[in-house]
Amino acid sequence: MSAELELHPDRLFAADINLRSIARRLYTEVKDLPIVSPHGHTDPRWFAEDAPFPNPTELLIIPDHYVFRMLYSQGVPLASLGVPSRDGSAVETDPRKIWRLFAEHYYLFRGTPSRLWLDYVFKEVFGIERRLQADSADFYYDTLQQQLQSDALRPRALFERYNIEVLATTESPLDDLRYHQSIRRSGWSGRVITAYRPDPVVDPEYEGFSENIARLGELTGESCGTYGSYLNALMQRREYFKQMGATSTDHGHPSAMTADLDRRAAEALYARVLDGNCSPADAELFRAQMLTEMAAMSLQDGLVMQIHPGSFRNHNEAVFRRFGRDKGADIPMATDYVHALKPLLDKFGGESALSIIVFTLDETSYSRELAPLAGHYPVLKLGPAWWFHDSPEGMRRFRNMTTETAGFYNTVGFNDDTRAFLSIPARHDVARRVDCAFLAQWVAEHRLAEDEAVEIAADLAYGLAKRAYKL
Amino acid sequence: MSAELELHPDRLFAADINLRSIARRLYTEVKDLPIVSPHGHTDPRWFAEDAPFPNPTELLIIPDHYVFRMLYSQGVPLASLGVPSRDGSAVETDPRKIWRLFAEHYYLFRGTPSRLWLDYVFKEVFGIERRLQADSADFYYDTLQQQLQSDALRPRALFERYNIEVLATTESPLDDLRYHQSIRRSGWSGRVITAYRPDPVVDPEYEGFSENIARLGELTGESCGTYGSYLNALMQRREYFKQMGATSTDHGHPSAMTADLDRRAAEALYARVLDGNCSPADAELFRAQMLTEMAAMSLQDGLVMQIHPGSFRNHNEAVFRRFGRDKGADIPMATDYVHALKPLLDKFGGESALSIIVFTLDETSYSRELAPLAGHYPVLKLGPAWWFHDSPEGMRRFRNMTTETAGFYNTVGFNDDTRAFLSIPARHDVARRVDCAFLAQWVAEHRLAEDEAVEIAADLAYGLAKRAYKL
Amino acid sequence: MSAELELHPDRLFAADINLRSIARRLYTEVKDLPIVSPHGHTDPRWFAEDAPFPNPTELLIIPDHYVFRMLYSQGVPLASLGVPSRDGSAVETDPRKIWRLFAEHYYLFRGTPSRLWLDYVFKEVFGIERRLQADSADFYYDTLQQQLQSDALRPRALFERYNIEVLATTESPLDDLRYHQSIRRSGWSGRVITAYRPDPVVDPEYEGFSENIARLGELTGESCGTYGSYLNALMQRREYFKQMGATSTDHGHPSAMTADLDRRAAEALYARVLDGNCSPADAELFRAQMLTEMAAMSLQDGLVMQIHPGSFRNHNEAVFRRFGRDKGADIPMATDYVHALKPLLDKFGGESALSIIVFTLDETSYSRELAPLAGHYPVLKLGPAWWFHDSPEGMRRFRNMTTETAGFYNTVGFNDDTRAFLSIPARHDVARRVDCAFLAQWVAEHRLAEDEAVEIAADLAYGLAKRAYKL
Repeated sequence: MSAELELHPDRLFAADINLRSIARRLYTEVKDLPIVSPHGHTDPRWFAEDAPFPNPTELLIIPDHYVFRMLYSQGVPLASLGVPSRDGSAVETDPRKIWRLFAEHYYLFRGTPSRLWLDYVFKEVFGIERRLQADSADFYYDTLQQQLQSDALRPRALFERYNIEVLATTESPLDDLRYHQSIRRSGWSGRVITAYRPDPVVDPEYEGFSENIARLGELTGESCGTYGSYLNALMQRREYFKQMGATSTDHGHPSAMTADLDRRAAEALYARVLDGNCSPADAELFRAQMLTEMAAMSLQDGLVMQIHPGSFRNHNEAVFRRFGRDKGADIPMATDYVHALKPLLDKFGGESALSIIVFTLDETSYSRELAPLAGHYPVLKLGPAWWFHDSPEGMRRFRNMTTETAGFYNTVGFNDDTRAFLSIPARHDVARRVDCAFLAQWVAEHRLAEDEAVEIAADLAYGLAKRAYKL
Repeated sequence: MSAELELHPDRLFAADINLRSIARRLYTEVKDLPIVSPHGHTDPRWFAEDAPFPNPTELLIIPDHYVFRMLYSQGVPLASLGVPSRDGSAVETDPRKIWRLFAEHYYLFRGTPSRLWLDYVFKEVFGIERRLQADSADFYYDTLQQQLQSDALRPRALFERYNIEVLATTESPLDDLRYHQSIRRSGWSGRVITAYRPDPVVDPEYEGFSENIARLGELTGESCGTYGSYLNALMQRREYFKQMGATSTDHGHPSAMTADLDRRAAEALYARVLDGNCSPADAELFRAQMLTEMAAMSLQDGLVMQIHPGSFRNHNEAVFRRFGRDKGADIPMATDYVHALKPLLDKFGGESALSIIVFTLDETSYSRELAPLAGHYPVLKLGPAWWFHDSPEGMRRFRNMTTETAGFYNTVGFNDDTRAFLSIPARHDVARRVDCAFLAQWVAEHRLAEDEAVEIAADLAYGLAKRAYKL
Repeated sequence: MSAELELHPDRLFAADINLRSIARRLYTEVKDLPIVSPHGHTDPRWFAEDAPFPNPTELLIIPDHYVFRMLYSQGVPLASLGVPSRDGSAVETDPRKIWRLFAEHYYLFRGTPSRLWLDYVFKEVFGIERRLQADSADFYYDTLQQQLQSDALRPRALFERYNIEVLATTESPLDDLRYHQSIRRSGWSGRVITAYRPDPVVDPEYEGFSENIARLGELTGESCGTYGSYLNALMQRREYFKQMGATSTDHGHPSAMTADLDRRAAEALYARVLDGNCSPADAELFRAQMLTEMAAMSLQDGLVMQIHPGSFRNHNEAVFRRFGRDKGADIPMATDYVHALKPLLDKFGGESALSIIVFTLDETSYSRELAPLAGHYPVLKLGPAWWFHDSPEGMRRFRNMTTETAGFYNTVGFNDDTRAFLSIPARHDVARRVDCAFLAQWVAEHRLAEDEAVEIAADLAYGLAKRAYKL
C-alpha cells in the first residue's frame, strides 16, 4: 500500500520559522489572485468543443515531453509509452499499460517540478490521497478515468474553476484560428486568445518552409514573391491574430541574432531564401533580419514581442526521424545577447512604446547580459525563468541573479508555457510560492519592507504579466 | 504620508537566530574599522576645494549612472533627469523637478543595492525618518538642500566623519593631478591618493587617442614617435603618479587579452597604431601588448596592477551620441581569462614581487577560471565582486564560488569603485555585513572556527585591501 | 598553544534546527555504508606491498597538488616544499622542515575542502586534538611519524578500517598492472581494481606519444602500423584490464569533441598522427574520433566510459618545465557539450546497454547542457561535482542545478578521484553530509517526503555508484 500523498500547506517555504511566517503572509495575499496566462501551448479546440478528455494517459503522459523524456533517459522506449511515431512504426496503444509503466517509474521524478505539478493535479483536481507507484497504478487510472467523464472536468468547467482570467495559446500564421473563432462565437465568457508565432514562415530551416510560404500566400492573397509582398502577408496575418485576441508575438530562434539590412540587401536575401537553397549563414541572417522586421511591425500594431532563443532543437537525430519534433530532445546552448541584439537595439532600443520580452535557457546570461540590458533599454523586459528553469531552484536563481541589476519592474511575472492544461494552477502556485519565499527572505534580512513586498508579490503573481502583455 | 524609513541593525544577516547571533558578533568586530578605499572615482577637486555640494540632484542623481539607467529603462528620458547632453540639446535644469521625478520612481529600486546605499545616506547622513516617495519628495529635497550647506557636510568633514584612512581616485596619465597637489599642499591630514589609468593612451580605440598621445608627449617631453619613447613617457607619468600617492594602476579593457610580442613586432604595431588607421585586431593586440608592458613596469616601480575586462562600453549608440560615455549602457560580455592571460603569465606568472588583481563581470569565470588561476599563480589575486555584482547576492555568489578553490587570502577585500562619495560608508557597510553573514554560515556549519572567522572578517574588511594595495 | 581541533558531529548541516534534525536522521542512515570508490588515483603498489608510509610530508604534502598549489600561490616556492624537479635542480629534502613550512601556512586553507579533509585525517586517523599551526608543527610531525610506523596505519589495515568495499585505481594501457596482479595473487580480501585510461596512447599531444604507441605494439604483439592494428591493440589491453578487475575507462581530453569519421578518413588521420607531425586540429580530431571508437568498444566489452574534458593542462609553462605534470596548474576552460557530443550521440545515444558518464569543470554546463542531455539520452549519466567542485558549495551547486532537470537517477553518486588515500573516508563523509543537508532542505520545504529522501540518500552514498560502475 503506497504512502500518503502530501501537499503541505507550507510547501516551498523555507524551514526557518521567521521566514516561513513572512512567506505565509505574503502568499495569503496572492494565492487567490486570478491566473493570467499570457504564453502557453494549450489546444484551443478543447475550449471550442468542450469535450471530456479521453483518458489519463492521453491527457497526462503522451503529450508531455517533460514526462516521457525522463523515462526514456532511463531506458524506457518511447514506443512503449505510446508516443506516436511519424514513420508508421508500431507504438503501444493500451493506455492502462502505459499508465502502469509510468507509475513504476514515477520515482524518477523525485526532485523535479513535474512531480510537484502532477502531485498537485492528483490531489487538488482528483482528490487522490495516496502516492503514485506500481501498486497504486490501477487505482489511479480508474479514479482519473472515471472523473474525466464528469462535467466538472471538462475544459471550460476547469477553466472557470481554475479562475483563469485570460489564457493565450500559440499559433502559426498559417493557422486559420477556427477554434478561436468558434470560442468567440459560442458566447462562453472564458477569455482564450491566440499569440502569433511565425517561426514556420520566417525560419528558412523550418520543416516545409517553401510550402509554408506558399500557404501564407494563399491565406493572404499576397504572392509572397517579393520581400514587400511577404512582409505584407505577415502583417495581414498579425492583423487577423489581433482580431482573435492576440496581444503578442513569439519567436523561438536558435540564436538571438538580429540584423538591420538595407532594403536592397534584405530583398536579395529573401530571394535566396525563397529559392530553397540558402546557406545556413543565410538562414541565420534571414531569421535575424525578421526579428528586426517584427519589431518594426510591433511598433505599428502594438503586439508585444517575445524572443526565446538558444535551444538546439531535435538534438536526437534517431528520435526525430521516428517520432518528430518536441520529443524532449531540445538541448540549450550557450547564448549571446549583447552582440546579437545590438542591431535591433540600435534601431529601436529607446522606444518606450515598443515592448520586447527576452527569455533564456542559458542562465549565465541572467546577471551578465540580460539584467544589465533590461536594466538599461526601455524596450527590453526580462521573461521569467523558462522551460528547464521553470522550477523552484530555477526561479530562485532567476530572482537572485536578476533583481539587483534589473529590479522587479523590468520583469514580466510568470508564464506557464504549457500544453498540460490540468497543471496550470499547479504551475502558477509553484511560482507564487517561490516568489513569496524569495521575498520573505529579503524582508527577513531587512532588505525590503514587508508592505513593499506585499505589493511586489501581487505584481509578480498578477500585475506585471497583465501590464507587460497588455491584457 | 510615507512609511517609516528603516535601517535595521541586523540588516543583511540571515533570519535564523543562530546564524544571526554569530553574524552580529563578527560584525561587531569589524564595523568600526577604518575605511580603506583603494579603487574609486570620486573627484579630487572636492577635497582640494572643500566647497559644499551644490544640491541633492547634482550630488545624488545626475552623476549616478546606477540611478538614471534604471529610470531610463522604465521610460523616463535621460534629458528629463538633467543628464548633460554633449550635442547641446536641451535637458531639464530644475533640480527640484528632477528630484520629484526621481522620488516618484524610487520604488523601481526595490531590491537593488542603490536602494540600500541611498536609504543609508538618507538616514545616517541626513537623519531622515520617512521613506522617499512622491509625497515626501519636497521634504527630502529641502532637508538635504539645507544640510548640504552646513560645514558638517563638506567633503573634508565627511571624509573624517566617515573614518576613511585612505581614498584612491583614478586619473588618466594626461591629468596634471593639480587637485592632488593642492590637497598635499593644503596641510589637510586626509589621505587622498591617485591611481594610474592609462586607457586613454594605451587603447587605440579610445576617443581622441591620437590627440592623447600628442598630449602625453607634451607632458613628458618625449616625442612618443617611437615605441621606446612612448614607453618612456608612460613610465615617467607613472613616476609622477607615484609621487602623488599612487600605489596602483588600473586597466579597463574590452577583453583580458595579453600579448608578449618581440620588440620589433611591438615597434611595428605601435607605428600602425600611431598612424590612426589600425584594424580592430591591431587595436586589440596593442592593448594586449600594453598589459604585458605595464606588468613589466609594475615589476620595476612596484605599482599594483588591476585588470577589469569584459564590458561592452557605450552599447546604446543613440545615448552615446547624445549624452556620451558612462551612461549606464556598459553591458558585460562573456570573458575568457585562461587563454587571454597566458602570454603575460608565461612571462611574469611566478613573480611574487608583482601583484596583479583581476576583476570580472562574467561570474561564470569565478569558479571556472579565476579562482583556479589565483589559487595557483603567485602573481594573481582576485578583485572583489565588481560593478553589477557589488551587491548582497553578487557578493555571496563571489564568496561561494571562489573561496573553496582560492581561499580568502588570494582575494583583496572590498573596493567601493564609486563616484558617489556620500555612499562610501554605506557600501563598505554592506560588504562587511554580507561577509560577516557569509562567515557566520560557515561557522554555524562548523566549516570554520569562530576565532578564525573573526580574523578573516577583519582581513576582508580592512587588512587584505591594505596589504594588497600596499597602503 | 594552538586551539582545539574540532570535528563537530553536525558539521556541514544547516544551522536551522529543523533542517539539522532531518539531516541528522538521513545521515544516520548512510554514514556507515561501505565506501565504493569507482574512480581514483591511489597507488596499487601500496596495497601490493603493504609497507608503512614513509613520513607525514611524503604522505600528505609532496604528492598533493591541492596542498602545494595553494602555498605556491602565496609565494612559497615549490622547491622549498620538496616537490621533485624533473630537471635535476635542487629541492628541499628535509621532511620536517617542509612540514613546518606547511604548518605556518595552514591558515591559507581556511574555507577550502583540503582543510576539511586534512582535519578529519588528523583527528579521526591520528587522534590529534589541537589545531595545526606553527607552534604545533613539531607535535604533529612527531605524532604522525610515530603512528605511521604502526601496523594499524599500513595500507591494507587502513583499507579495512575504512570499510572500503571496492577501490579503483587508474592506469595507462601501457602499465603492466604488476601490482594489481600481485594483490590478486596475495590472497588479501581487499578489492582493488584498475581502470583503463588511454590518454597516453590516444592523444597525439601527450608527452611521448610516438614512444607510447611503440610500447603499445610491444605489449600486444600488434604492429600498430595501421588503424586496424592500433584498435586491436587498444581492445586487447582493455581485455587485460578487465581481467584485472576494470569495469570502466576514463578519458581526460581538453574538450568533449567527438567525431564519427568513415573508416578511410580515420585511417588517413591515424597515418598523419603516427607520422608525429599532425596539426593541432588533427590532434583534436583524432581524440574526438577515439572517443567514439572507445564507445564502440564499450558497447562490446561492457566497460563503462567516463569523459571529463575541459582542463587546460600544465598552464604554467615554467612550473611544467621544472616540475612536470600535475602541479596544480591545470585550469578549467569553458566547455561545450551540446555540439561536441553530437557525433557520438548520433551513433550511440539510444543504446541502453552503453553507459557514458560525463564530468565537467565548467559549472555553466550543469543546467544548460548536461542535465538536459542526461535527462534525455539513455546512454548518458552525470558524473558528480568534480575536482575544484568536489567541495561543499560545489556539491550544493551541482545538486541545485542538475536535480530538477535530470533527477537523482541520472547521476552516479560520489567519486573521490584522489591519490590522497588517507583522506578517502573524509571525502566520502563530506559528500554524504552535503547530500543529506541538501535532501533535508527539500524535505523541510515539502518537496520530497522523508521516506523518499532516505532511499535517495542511500543511493547517492552507495547504490548509484555501485550500479553505474557495475561494481
